[in-house]
Amino acid sequence: MNSCGIIVEYNPFHNGHQYHIMKSKEESQADCVIAVMSGQFLQRGEPAIIDKWHRSRAALQSGVDLVVELPYLFAVQHSDYFSKGAVLTLDALGVNSICFGSENGSISPFLESYDHLSQNATLYEKSLRESLNEGNSYPEAARTANEAIGISTSNFDFSAPNNILGYSYVKQIFNYAPSIEPLTVERKESQYHDSTISGQMASATSIRKEILNNNQITEQAASTLPDATIEELISYYNQTHLWHEWDKYFDLLHYKLSTISLADLKEIHGVDEGLEYRLKQAIKSSTSFMDFMERIKTKRYTWTRLQRTCTHILVGLTKTEATKHLNTNSAPYVRILGMNHIGQRYLSEYKKKMTVPLITQPQQLTHSLLDIEEKSTAAYYSPLSAKQRVHQYHNEFGPPLRILQ
Amino acid sequence: MNSCGIIVEYNPFHNGHQYHIMKSKEESQADCVIAVMSGQFLQRGEPAIIDKWHRSRAALQSGVDLVVELPYLFAVQHSDYFSKGAVLTLDALGVNSICFGSENGSISPFLESYDHLSQNATLYEKSLRESLNEGNSYPEAARTANEAIGISTSNFDFSAPNNILGYSYVKQIFNYAPSIEPLTVERKESQYHDSTISGQMASATSIRKEILNNNQITEQAASTLPDATIEELISYYNQTHLWHEWDKYFDLLHYKLSTISLADLKEIHGVDEGLEYRLKQAIKSSTSFMDFMERIKTKRYTWTRLQRTCTHILVGLTKTEATKHLNTNSAPYVRILGMNHIGQRYLSEYKKKMTVPLITQPQQLTHSLLDIEEKSTAAYYSPLSAKQRVHQYHNEFGPPLRILQ
Repeated sequence: MNSCGIIVEYNPFHNGHQYHIMKSKEESQADCVIAVMSGQFLQRGEPAIIDKWHRSRAALQSGVDLVVELPYLFAVQHSDYFSKGAVLTLDALGVNSICFGSENGSISPFLESYDHLSQNATLYEKSLRESLNEGNSYPEAARTANEAIGISTSNFDFSAPNNILGYSYVKQIFNYAPSIEPLTVERKESQYHDSTISGQMASATSIRKEILNNNQITEQAASTLPDATIEELISYYNQTHLWHEWDKYFDLLHYKLSTISLADLKEIHGVDEGLEYRLKQAIKSSTSFMDFMERIKTKRYTWTRLQRTCTHILVGLTKTEATKHLNTNSAPYVRILGMNHIGQRYLSEYKKKMTVPLITQPQQLTHSLLDIEEKSTAAYYSPLSAKQRVHQYHNEFGPPLRILQ
Repeated sequence: MNSCGIIVEYNPFHNGHQYHIMKSKEESQADCVIAVMSGQFLQRGEPAIIDKWHRSRAALQSGVDLVVELPYLFAVQHSDYFSKGAVLTLDALGVNSICFGSENGSISPFLESYDHLSQNATLYEKSLRESLNEGNSYPEAARTANEAIGISTSNFDFSAPNNILGYSYVKQIFNYAPSIEPLTVERKESQYHDSTISGQMASATSIRKEILNNNQITEQAASTLPDATIEELISYYNQTHLWHEWDKYFDLLHYKLSTISLADLKEIHGVDEGLEYRLKQAIKSSTSFMDFMERIKTKRYTWTRLQRTCTHILVGLTKTEATKHLNTNSAPYVRILGMNHIGQRYLSEYKKKMTVPLITQPQQLTHSLLDIEEKSTAAYYSPLSAKQRVHQYHNEFGPPLRILQ
């Protein structure tokens, strides 16, 4: 079977995602679409609005054939590690291509930039390091380094978040899985950072904002979502009485930061360069997550970088755990979250060729990344009522979803 | 000035406590009554119903001249360490006597038992160790050991909680501060473990139960409390919208236990003999604090012992921190929570003679026990709203109370 991999968060699954799947199938001529999806927490260091099970179900009802989990360790990282984890996972599943959304839908600027960067790696690294040493954030330093080697943003906008990610996918495909063909299709939804909905192809950010601010799926939000997503959002809310956002974790973050020792805080992944003092000091006076973030923000760190660090503090990811696995060259395992009959057929055909463990339940394998997954799931469900928490947590150890209509 | 020390929790301060102060003054002929009081968490491993500041104010308005804090490390311990910390603190303040409440108000059975035990220490220790090795709880083993050396409960009821504590006070006075005279007065309130109020001298347990179950100070509860306590209970509730009890911390305990590693959990003071596995397993299915406690209970451990361990998990007290200071032979420091003009005069006279640091604010001294105090205070206020939490937490670093009418 010809298979196409896609790298997704689905927070939540919207019309733009549906379009992406349809066009990816066209472009790749694949029989099976495999999505590697972030779990409970996302790349920007945020809890997903609904849990990974409800997001997987919406995806399986909207064109995805197989959903596998991107381990927390890779999911909550800057684009290079995020891409690496996703590409390694899709490679372990033997996909023929990976198709991502980009601003203009053409793969050549990504390939040309990769070639150009490969030829100018030394200069790029030097410029990057200098800019970081001057106290600039990573995205800023990367922009400067790109300019230094002559990749200007005039003919290709590297600052668009989806292009940054796309470039990162291409880079990691060439680095770690060169047999996979990189493909891209044009995005139809509005810009990633747009905060208001306009039309039926809106960014996930604007959709979440509309839903969370109104604490309901307004007509405007509904117009951007497939029915399956609306059903899953409502079903999750009816069970748990909430949709997740950072503010619902602020009490826990406060408790954790107030009771952890400086030495242990310094051991958390992302707490570098004396950030531990700043975090400890700021939490004492903070009255909301936003207030806290404003207090810890500096020129040096992007908002996203700090949010990711807050997530690692909440989950308790240590530097030791992180460094042990981030520099791997192969997926630690592949964990199935859900499948339809096409995905099931693909798996039964391909699993004999797999060289990493394939699991349908975490208890099938002893692996420290699964311990981190368990902690992240426990932290994710913490704002729920005690009864719902127990109920949802037990799903984590149940079988994957099977949508076999 | 002649001073008398009392060892208290005041959870909350009730008519029996007022009687104890009055009789202690008579018995000791003291000019100044000094209370060493547990802070935010108590000997039985519970949060205090209202914080230490409101409890101190009630005490100062009801006959106590000086309130000092029993450090968390000693406050949340079995009777021997609890007594040791309290006696060392009162000794550092130069009290002439310590007067405690007991069932029959006579000091001689305590002194005779101490003599008898001193003469039969080897047999006592042997019997205690054997009984513990058989899997009995510490109180049970102590009872067996007492019987082995001929201290029978027929002429003196060692099983009454106040007698256990009283005996422990006498023992630690003789061990660590033999210049202090031990005194006792008869308790007038009903038994410690009585769970319902009868009359105006009720146990603190029954008063808390009445208040927490009704979420108000009922007439029956009010009849057992001085006006000052009622005022402080109401004032605290009006600010924070709650009175503290374990259930309000269950979400935090769940979060902590679900995200801590087995290795780190094993490092918590009180987590011994594989208890870490039992705690990790039980928390997954528990839907309330009571439910959790029922799941972890065994013959070996008393309810109180397990509650104390839960408190240490919540606060994050490690074995390393605990063992470093529990075996001390002198108070680490004396921290003033509040005083009236008599207490102030006593302090200004006595402080020249003090051999340990006297502090009125924690930032005056760098000491790891004060770091633990800070963590325990942060954990204690965690169930409050974010704004109230910041407000109450800042009081921790303010000056002590001065009631100078």
